[in-house]
Amino acid sequence: MSHDWLTAACAAIDEESMRVAREHQSQLTKPPGSLGMLETLAIRLAGMQRSATPAVAQVWISVFAGDHGIAAEGVSAFPQVVTGEMVRNFANGGAAISVLARALGARLEVVNLGTVNDPGELPGVRRAIVAAQTRNFCEGPAMDDGQLAAALRVGADSVDAAREAGAALFIGGEMGIANTTSAAALACALLDETPDRLAGAGTGLDDAGIRHKAEVIGRALARYPAGNDPLAWLARVGGFEIAALAGAYVAAAQRGLPVLVDGFITTAAALAAVRIQPACRDWMFFAHRSRERGHARLLEALQADPLLDLGLRLGEASGAASAVPLLRLACELHNRMATFAQAQVSNA
Amino acid sequence: MSHDWLTAACAAIDEESMRVAREHQSQLTKPPGSLGMLETLAIRLAGMQRSATPAVAQVWISVFAGDHGIAAEGVSAFPQVVTGEMVRNFANGGAAISVLARALGARLEVVNLGTVNDPGELPGVRRAIVAAQTRNFCEGPAMDDGQLAAALRVGADSVDAAREAGAALFIGGEMGIANTTSAAALACALLDETPDRLAGAGTGLDDAGIRHKAEVIGRALARYPAGNDPLAWLARVGGFEIAALAGAYVAAAQRGLPVLVDGFITTAAALAAVRIQPACRDWMFFAHRSRERGHARLLEALQADPLLDLGLRLGEASGAASAVPLLRLACELHNRMATFAQAQVSNA
Repeated sequence: MSHDWLTAACAAIDEESMRVAREHQSQLTKPPGSLGMLETLAIRLAGMQRSATPAVAQVWISVFAGDHGIAAEGVSAFPQVVTGEMVRNFANGGAAISVLARALGARLEVVNLGTVNDPGELPGVRRAIVAAQTRNFCEGPAMDDGQLAAALRVGADSVDAAREAGAALFIGGEMGIANTTSAAALACALLDETPDRLAGAGTGLDDAGIRHKAEVIGRALARYPAGNDPLAWLARVGGFEIAALAGAYVAAAQRGLPVLVDGFITTAAALAAVRIQPACRDWMFFAHRSRERGHARLLEALQADPLLDLGLRLGEASGAASAVPLLRLACELHNRMATFAQAQVSNA
Repeated sequence: MSHDWLTAACAAIDEESMRVAREHQSQLTKPPGSLGMLETLAIRLAGMQRSATPAVAQVWISVFAGDHGIAAEGVSAFPQVVTGEMVRNFANGGAAISVLARALGARLEVVNLGTVNDPGELPGVRRAIVAAQTRNFCEGPAMDDGQLAAALRVGADSVDAAREAGAALFIGGEMGIANTTSAAALACALLDETPDRLAGAGTGLDDAGIRHKAEVIGRALARYPAGNDPLAWLARVGGFEIAALAGAYVAAAQRGLPVLVDGFITTAAALAAVRIQPACRDWMFFAHRSRERGHARLLEALQADPLLDLGLRLGEASGAASAVPLLRLACELHNRMATFAQAQVSNA
C-alpha cells in the first residue's frame, strides 16, 4: 500500500460563500461581532459547505481503538485489557461517547484496529485489524510501513462511510490504553519538545508516574536522528488508532468534509495530518482544551482556538461531541435571525 | 410594597443527593474526574433537584426589557428607540434569543418593564410597566423605592410562572439601551472599583466612547457616600430590568429553582442578589465569560467559573441559552453511562 494519496489536493473553501455569510451576519439584529465564535463558526461552515445556509444535521463519529506495546513499560493507570473491554462498552451503548452520540442523534462507528483482548465481532464495530497491538516503541518502531499505510487507510475509509451516510461533520475519537504516551512522543518529535513538557497524567498517573512516562518517551526518541518527517514518526512512536485519525483528517479535507477535533491524542494526530498535508488545517474545528498536559502546546502549534474548556480528559471523542450543539446553534442563529431591515430595528 | 421577602430563607441543597451522585460518577466507565465540569454540573443538579437522576428538560427564559434615562448622556452606540424595537423582534421570533429558545425547546417570556418607544401589547410579551424609563442617574436616583420594589417583584413573578410551567432551569436575560452603563455603575459601587476598570464597549463604543462612559459613571457615583447597600445602589444607578433580574435570582433560590446566569449585566444583577441574600449563590450556574470589560471582575467576585468563553457580548440571555446543551448532556452522561460493574470493564 502506498502513502501517495495523502498528498493529493484538499477541497477548496469557498471564499465567496464566506464573504456572503460575513455580510449576512452584519445585517442580523445584534451589535456587529457580538456573537463571537458563534459567528465565525457559521461563516467557516458556509465556506466549507458552499452554502448561504450552513447546517450540521447528520454528525458522524468514528472511535478508533488500538492497543499499544508501550503499555508494557507501565505508563498507564489502567490495565491493557481495558481497550478491548471498552470496545464492547462502546458497542453496548454504555460509554460516554455512546451516550453522547445518542443524545445528539449522531451515527457512532467503532473501529477496532487491534486489541490484545479481542472482543470479536460486535454490532456497530468495524473490524480493521492491523495487528493485536503496536510494538513496544522503546524496543523498535511501533509499526512497519505496511501497517502504517493500512492504519491511515482505515481512517480514510471511515470518512468515505461518513460521506455516504450524508454526514455534514466528521468526528474522530480514540481508545487505547497507553495512547497518551504514544501521542506525547509523537508531539515531542514533531514539535522538538522535551517529554517532561508534553507527558501528562493520562487516565490518572501521579507525579512519579508522569516522570516515568517522560523517561520512557525520552528513551524511545533517543533511538532516532533529529528530523520531523510525520510519516516516519507515526511509524516509530504512533499507534494504529492515531494513524487512522491522521488519515481520516487528511481524507476529510480532500473530500470537503469538516472535522471537529477532540482532545490531546486526536490533536496530536491532527498535527501529524497537517504536517503531511498542510491544506487539511482549513477543514478543522477544535472542540475543547483538554486538561491533559501537552494539549495546550499542540493547540498553539496548530493556531487552534477551541470552543470549550471544561477540564475534560476522557477522549473517545467525548469533548468533540459536547461541542456539537454549539455548531448547530451557530447555524440556527445564522439562518433564522431577522435582519435589521426585516425586523425594522434601527442600526447603530 | 416591601423588600422584606428578599431576605426570606433560600431552599437547601440536598447534600445526600450530591454525595450519592458523586459516588455514582466514580463508578461510571471513565477515569475518575475525566468529565470535568460535566461531572460537577450533574452532581450540583442532583443536589438541587434532590434526585439521583438530574434532568434539565423544560427550560424557562425570561428576557426583561427596560429603558434607561442615562442613555441621554450618549453612552450607547445604538439609539434608545432600539429597546422597544427589540421587544417586538423578540416577540416576532427574529432575535438571537428567539432563535435559541426555539432550538432548545425552551419557553421564552419577554417582560416589558418600561420602554420609551412602547411596542404595546404583543403576544408573548408580559407588560409590567414600572415607568417609561429610569431617571438619568447623573441627575438623581434612577428609581424611587416603590419602583425598585415593583421591579424586584416582577422578577419573582417570572420565577413563579417558570415553576408553574414545570421548568427545571430559569434563565434571565435583558435588553435595554445603555444598560451596560447602569450595570457597570452598580458593579463599581458594590465592588469598590473605579469606572475605568469596569466600563466597556457595550454594543460597540470606541475608546473615546468608553472613556466618556466611565466619566459619566464616575459623576453619578460621586453623588453618594461610600457604602455597599445593594438595594440602595439598585435604586441609585440600576435599571428596572436589572432589579427584576436580581429579584428573580433571589426568588429562584427561595423556591429551589436553579438559575443559569448569562453575561455582564445579568452577573451584575446576580452580584446584587447575592449581596441581598447570600444563600442564593448556591443556586447559580454561570454560562459564559463575556467579552465585555468588567465581566471577569464580576465573575471573580462571585467565585464563578463559567462554562463557555466564546467572545459573546450580546446579552438577551443568548450566552446562557448557548450553554443549556452542556447541562443536558451532563445529565445524560450521569444517568445513562454504564458503571464498571455493569459493563464488566476493569478499574484502575
